[in-house]
Amino acid sequence: RIQKYVTKKLGEDWIFLVLLGLVMALVSWGVDYASAKTVQAYKWTYRALHPNVPLQYVVWVAFPLGLILFAASFCHFVSPQAVGSGIPELKTIMRGVVLKEYLTLKAFVAKVVALTAGLGSGMPVGKESWMTPCSHTCQFCYSLSVFFPSFFCLSPYYYTDVLTVGCAVGVGCCFGTPLGGVLFSIEVTSTYFAVRNYWRGFFAATFSAFVFRVLAVWNKDAVTITALFRTNFRMDFPFDLQELPAFAIIGICSGFLGAFFVYLNRQVVLGIRRHKALSQFLTKYRLIYPAVITFCIASVTFPHGFGQFMAGELMPREAISTLFDNYTWIKHSGDTQILGKSAAWIHPKVSVFVIILLFFLVKFCMAVIATTMPIPCGGFMPVFVLGAAFGRLIGEIMASLFPNGILFDDILYQILPGGYAVIGAAALTGAVSHTVSTAVICFELTGQISHILPMMVAVILANMVAQSLQPSLYDSIIQVKK
Amino acid sequence: RIQKYVTKKLGEDWIFLVLLGLVMALVSWGVDYASAKTVQAYKWTYRALHPNVPLQYVVWVAFPLGLILFAASFCHFVSPQAVGSGIPELKTIMRGVVLKEYLTLKAFVAKVVALTAGLGSGMPVGKESWMTPCSHTCQFCYSLSVFFPSFFCLSPYYYTDVLTVGCAVGVGCCFGTPLGGVLFSIEVTSTYFAVRNYWRGFFAATFSAFVFRVLAVWNKDAVTITALFRTNFRMDFPFDLQELPAFAIIGICSGFLGAFFVYLNRQVVLGIRRHKALSQFLTKYRLIYPAVITFCIASVTFPHGFGQFMAGELMPREAISTLFDNYTWIKHSGDTQILGKSAAWIHPKVSVFVIILLFFLVKFCMAVIATTMPIPCGGFMPVFVLGAAFGRLIGEIMASLFPNGILFDDILYQILPGGYAVIGAAALTGAVSHTVSTAVICFELTGQISHILPMMVAVILANMVAQSLQPSLYDSIIQVKK
Repeated sequence: RIQKYVTKKLGEDWIFLVLLGLVMALVSWGVDYASAKTVQAYKWTYRALHPNVPLQYVVWVAFPLGLILFAASFCHFVSPQAVGSGIPELKTIMRGVVLKEYLTLKAFVAKVVALTAGLGSGMPVGKESWMTPCSHTCQFCYSLSVFFPSFFCLSPYYYTDVLTVGCAVGVGCCFGTPLGGVLFSIEVTSTYFAVRNYWRGFFAATFSAFVFRVLAVWNKDAVTITALFRTNFRMDFPFDLQELPAFAIIGICSGFLGAFFVYLNRQVVLGIRRHKALSQFLTKYRLIYPAVITFCIASVTFPHGFGQFMAGELMPREAISTLFDNYTWIKHSGDTQILGKSAAWIHPKVSVFVIILLFFLVKFCMAVIATTMPIPCGGFMPVFVLGAAFGRLIGEIMASLFPNGILFDDILYQILPGGYAVIGAAALTGAVSHTVSTAVICFELTGQISHILPMMVAVILANMVAQSLQPSLYDSIIQVKK
Repeated sequence: RIQKYVTKKLGEDWIFLVLLGLVMALVSWGVDYASAKTVQAYKWTYRALHPNVPLQYVVWVAFPLGLILFAASFCHFVSPQAVGSGIPELKTIMRGVVLKEYLTLKAFVAKVVALTAGLGSGMPVGKESWMTPCSHTCQFCYSLSVFFPSFFCLSPYYYTDVLTVGCAVGVGCCFGTPLGGVLFSIEVTSTYFAVRNYWRGFFAATFSAFVFRVLAVWNKDAVTITALFRTNFRMDFPFDLQELPAFAIIGICSGFLGAFFVYLNRQVVLGIRRHKALSQFLTKYRLIYPAVITFCIASVTFPHGFGQFMAGELMPREAISTLFDNYTWIKHSGDTQILGKSAAWIHPKVSVFVIILLFFLVKFCMAVIATTMPIPCGGFMPVFVLGAAFGRLIGEIMASLFPNGILFDDILYQILPGGYAVIGAAALTGAVSHTVSTAVICFELTGQISHILPMMVAVILANMVAQSLQPSLYDSIIQVKK
């Protein structure tokens, strides 16, 4: 009787959730650690060859080329199902369609290894493809529960409930954002949501995010458990009501840009498919397509070439943290010392507006094409960077229009371009994925909630525009793959 | 054809949502304004009679007595359905039960007027009963849509969808917390939630919260749109990992306290019902019950009597903002000057621990009894205050255990008792209502998200304990009323 009691207690769902959260946080942190080290090695090698520009160029291009080709061939040989974002597939599975060999251990391994390589290459590919490994684990546990019903008494679960929890954990420990993770995964994968399942997602995602952040503290990456891209905006007067039109413009423009992104992404895939000869050629030599794309992207961003006009030396994560910084760049064109890493955005001969605009335009095309590569890659992170750049552009324009700040109650308040960047990032990701919970993810990523109302306004406007023009990126991929 | 197009566009749901948000924000702000003015008048009269203690006592007791009696009799004569929290009734309606005469215009008026009086009395009654007026409006619009199908083309809506949006708007503009409002209303009222309805709630709640906060700016209550109970904790190092056990203890204790609160609340109602003679007497003389309770509560909190040992002069909102403040009270027992309103918590002869403990114990009993009064009253706000006091108590104890702060990386970090108060508030409300979105409401109310991980841990622990002991407060009321 005692044994029965123990096995029953052990099989309770919270143990399952703790284990799921723990394992996923460890793997997620492992992916982050390995890819961060790869990026470090990349930059170190690049810098070590300093005066020799041609050799630097070779390293700058060959390093990501090798990693992407490795990722693509690893996926091809181990599990071709691991290619892509994973969210469209999950959405399809949640609606009851059986995708053969999708949630297997092989696909899990392929996802994790190829994702690490992809992230380490510094290419504009996102980590939210990470949701699927978690669902794999859920699926794995679910299969176990069929074989060991006495041990894993998961009877109150339905299959989709388990997957929903997996998705929540996936997004939650991907960025260390438990709340936003749960909401985002509900929005992108479900049509009807069982509220009784809500706390499960929260529990597992919080535990997972907690372990994920504690590992960062333990590894001395962070002093204590704080946000991933912490911002330091003033809180007593974060923004003025007179700035609201600018926030609304960011929202509406993001809506159009998001819809355009989805449209272009679909057209690239359909265009290749329509061109019979090209399509056959690419199917035969699978590695040509990612190789050409990686070569082009790396060549364009080369810091001694065109990259100097678009902050090419910044890796995606660095780009985000510099775009969210607390300076007003147009005021620091002379002295770039105090800007730190953000100095990459200042060019002695070119205006900072042109640099941000070039960054946005080039990265936009890059992100559209890079997300069609046959490797595990998400669209969330690249779009997040784009949105941040767009918001920052508007913010710097506002700062140059009102160089002395905005007068309110006889006090002059400076404009915070970093706040505009945060709002732009939330709005554009919201528009592309047709979700509003990107706002929550932004609060958790930045650790500041002071811009809540303008951000909600921008995200909702972006959603209204984007939803009336195009399906979401994930629905668009489902349509294309049908 | 143009006319048809115009009526179709006018009938689109976002117009409905904007109108709903606007109207509800205006009414919510009106309720807030009127009740705040009433409280001001109350305190002003009390202070004007300064040297005359007996007369002060009469005013202190008579003022809330009059308001509560007015609220109770107004409800009784206009619409007895307006009594209580409203959330249990909404939950019942959402599950398909028809409650006659519940969602009527009369009940709406009764709710709004009686709620204003109740809030103005300074009694521990909450404003989240406010959800129901919004649902009334939704119901009203829904009835309209039946009569004018061409104008209000609400066909894509189902009845419960409209009500869900109403609930979200209700909570959203009650505290100016759109995100938390939507999530809280989903958690307490729905069992299955349609994700397509998600953006509607967000849209209406954001608009409503926006108007609500803009009105505050316009009325010069606030400088700009910021959080209602804004906190100013340091952000570079909000807490240390070594403080986590204390946060976990807050969570677990809150779970037990929350379950105890629900149990006591039910026992009070059932106890009166079991006692036949008392029950008949109270049904005959309806005003006796609220009068006795109000008299007792006001007498206990009288600042020159027992109230001096429990910060009795603070109204609920003042209590929250002082509990969330940035000082460490045990260090300021001598000089109360810089504390401002928080000076009410310092007594020259009694330790601050005893005062917070007394406040917690007395207010606990008060809140249990006050929420059974026959007026429109929610349990959210009183429980929120209790949780904040409990958290603050633990925080001050921690601050006295580690008077020099916690050493980390050779830097001494002071303990922030205010942060403990925020976590306690979220955990206790979460335990009583069986929700995790109280954490989101707390972030939005305080405008700071730096304590996200310990708060999520505390809220989830509180939920685990409370859910295994008792039903939620709302389910408990449904069971009692059956």
